[in-house]
Amino acid sequence: MVNYFSSDFKLGILGGGQLGKMMLYETRKYDIQTNVVDPNAEAPCRIACDHFEQGDLMDFETVLNFGRKVDVLTFEIEGVNVEALAQLEKEGIKTYPSADTLKKIQNKGIQKQFYIDNNIPTAAFERFDNLEALTEAVKTEKVGLPFVWKSTTGGYDGKGVSVIKKAEDLDGLDDSECIAETMIPFKNELAVIVARSASGEVRTYPVVEMEFHPTANQVEYVLCPARIDDKVAQKARATAKKVSEAFEHVGLLAVEMFQTQEDEILVNEVAPRPHNSGHYSIEASYTNQFEQHIRAILDLPLGNTDSKVGGIMVNLVGDENHTGEVVYQNIEEIMKMDGVTPHIYGKKITRPFRKMGHVTIVNKDLAEARKIAEKVKNSIKVISKT
Amino acid sequence: MVNYFSSDFKLGILGGGQLGKMMLYETRKYDIQTNVVDPNAEAPCRIACDHFEQGDLMDFETVLNFGRKVDVLTFEIEGVNVEALAQLEKEGIKTYPSADTLKKIQNKGIQKQFYIDNNIPTAAFERFDNLEALTEAVKTEKVGLPFVWKSTTGGYDGKGVSVIKKAEDLDGLDDSECIAETMIPFKNELAVIVARSASGEVRTYPVVEMEFHPTANQVEYVLCPARIDDKVAQKARATAKKVSEAFEHVGLLAVEMFQTQEDEILVNEVAPRPHNSGHYSIEASYTNQFEQHIRAILDLPLGNTDSKVGGIMVNLVGDENHTGEVVYQNIEEIMKMDGVTPHIYGKKITRPFRKMGHVTIVNKDLAEARKIAEKVKNSIKVISKT
Repeated sequence: MVNYFSSDFKLGILGGGQLGKMMLYETRKYDIQTNVVDPNAEAPCRIACDHFEQGDLMDFETVLNFGRKVDVLTFEIEGVNVEALAQLEKEGIKTYPSADTLKKIQNKGIQKQFYIDNNIPTAAFERFDNLEALTEAVKTEKVGLPFVWKSTTGGYDGKGVSVIKKAEDLDGLDDSECIAETMIPFKNELAVIVARSASGEVRTYPVVEMEFHPTANQVEYVLCPARIDDKVAQKARATAKKVSEAFEHVGLLAVEMFQTQEDEILVNEVAPRPHNSGHYSIEASYTNQFEQHIRAILDLPLGNTDSKVGGIMVNLVGDENHTGEVVYQNIEEIMKMDGVTPHIYGKKITRPFRKMGHVTIVNKDLAEARKIAEKVKNSIKVISKT
Repeated sequence: MVNYFSSDFKLGILGGGQLGKMMLYETRKYDIQTNVVDPNAEAPCRIACDHFEQGDLMDFETVLNFGRKVDVLTFEIEGVNVEALAQLEKEGIKTYPSADTLKKIQNKGIQKQFYIDNNIPTAAFERFDNLEALTEAVKTEKVGLPFVWKSTTGGYDGKGVSVIKKAEDLDGLDDSECIAETMIPFKNELAVIVARSASGEVRTYPVVEMEFHPTANQVEYVLCPARIDDKVAQKARATAKKVSEAFEHVGLLAVEMFQTQEDEILVNEVAPRPHNSGHYSIEASYTNQFEQHIRAILDLPLGNTDSKVGGIMVNLVGDENHTGEVVYQNIEEIMKMDGVTPHIYGKKITRPFRKMGHVTIVNKDLAEARKIAEKVKNSIKVISKT
């Protein structure tokens, strides 16, 4: 067994954003040395790691040189140079999740095909080399309306995804490789985080539910546990586990799924890292997702994924009318509320819809937590200094 | 209201040990800027703060210059230059806990007299200028045997305290100002952490119980909640609150108490900061003690002090036969156990009985947690590399 604790062992993390920052709470707790690289000199991870450097995560040489200085390498963002990861693996640097897994996930066309090849239920789709090919297919009615357009690469937080109801909706979309996916009139959007260690130990977290705003098409709350039937929850956890095993994934895999009107579970997409849908776990779970990720990639025993209490997460995004030095208006008001913990990521400048932090609300009674979550949502505002 | 979050506001922390390190998880969570000073360049806080400097905490100029660069000043260790704190207060730097409180607490004779003056129940005592004066009092039977000798300053983790059963036990003790305290044949040693904010909001944590080794005179487990009557618990919390209010304390105050055979509560001593007896709160409480300390000294609303689950803390101290580069033997074994979280403070060198970390065990059933805690205690060993 490697001695990770207060030793010379070094963990490398590609990316220094909020996910990395929350991972560093855990490496500090275990006193595991960390190196972090991020393009932004002011990245949230610039402190709390042992060594920080500035660099382009998509640059082969940068990732290669960074990786050569560590014993195990992981990432907190998918946008990293995967060829460099593959080269590092060849050189004997343990890279978790693997270059192979990341490659499959980085391209949504390949990811979808992987589900088909592995008998993992997912919405039907077709792949197109570019927008022109898709436009032609729509014109000739080879692809029926409506459908969901997704760019195969570069999508993030709703970018690169569009609902196409009529042919004209295609105008102005990126001219990239893309897929056209059958629209699923789902009952619920669910997610399950799976932890799988290097030696194959697997644990799934409880199913979480994304609750959408009644009119705006935006996730407002992430609730754990999801307010669904036990049978559906079991099916979702089993499906997520199957996905993780198919990828031979090491680390965390966040599996986003649809619950259809017929209570079928369809895999939407995955993220091979700690995930927004698992932030509730810091306050609610016996083992939070960041600690679990560290345990998994270092092949330590996995922790209990059960919850101590019900948890709800609300994202703190920049108000749409504000750009500039950030102020968290009414944060004192929400701190008065029972079981409320704000997490401030440390970005100095707010912009419309920028993810600036999140708030967790925990309570033994999930319905009570839901009421408090709504008060939180209606109180705090992320604005700029006047 | 001051804007603390992602702003130019600076919190200064005197001392960079494990308590400071755990405080920094919370300042990072809130993105509050911190400066830390510690005599040791390798102190656990050297990373995760915004600015670290090396310096002597007992040196007037060091503390003064450090304090002048921050907006609010706190400490994680009592051994700091209190005259410098008083000077900083005069200059308008908010210092919490205050110089006045710290001065009273730093000297055990003054601390005990303060309890007497404020009608706070405590064991009877007498103060002596030096060992000679005490020895004379014992000889002339003005002080009866047995009693507890305590040096009024410099005591820490059992140092500066001795049980005197016969006159010869005084030989070799420090020749310092001291007190002789009546020995209390207590049923339980209890502690309550009180949080009091600058504007006077007060919350007490549940009573914790120190469970001693059946033969060695050493605390083995800290349990929350204490396995005592509700009435006794209420009395302990009320007493602790009274102590905090008497001091007009701002920040956390850990109040250690005896439960006598007659179920009376006597105050033993206090620590004006986050405390070993509150470490369980990181995993078990709605608001952990470090977050609560930050809330209190910044006059933010105090959080819920209730527990989500039962919690037990086991100290990780260096094995008595080992000195050198530390190894946490069998740490993987304890990580397999349910609800177990090790905290490694980050000291590279272990020495006999050195506090190297702690382990928290949480469970909905405290009796179950207690069983697991015993397994933890019997598994992990803090040794040096062979």
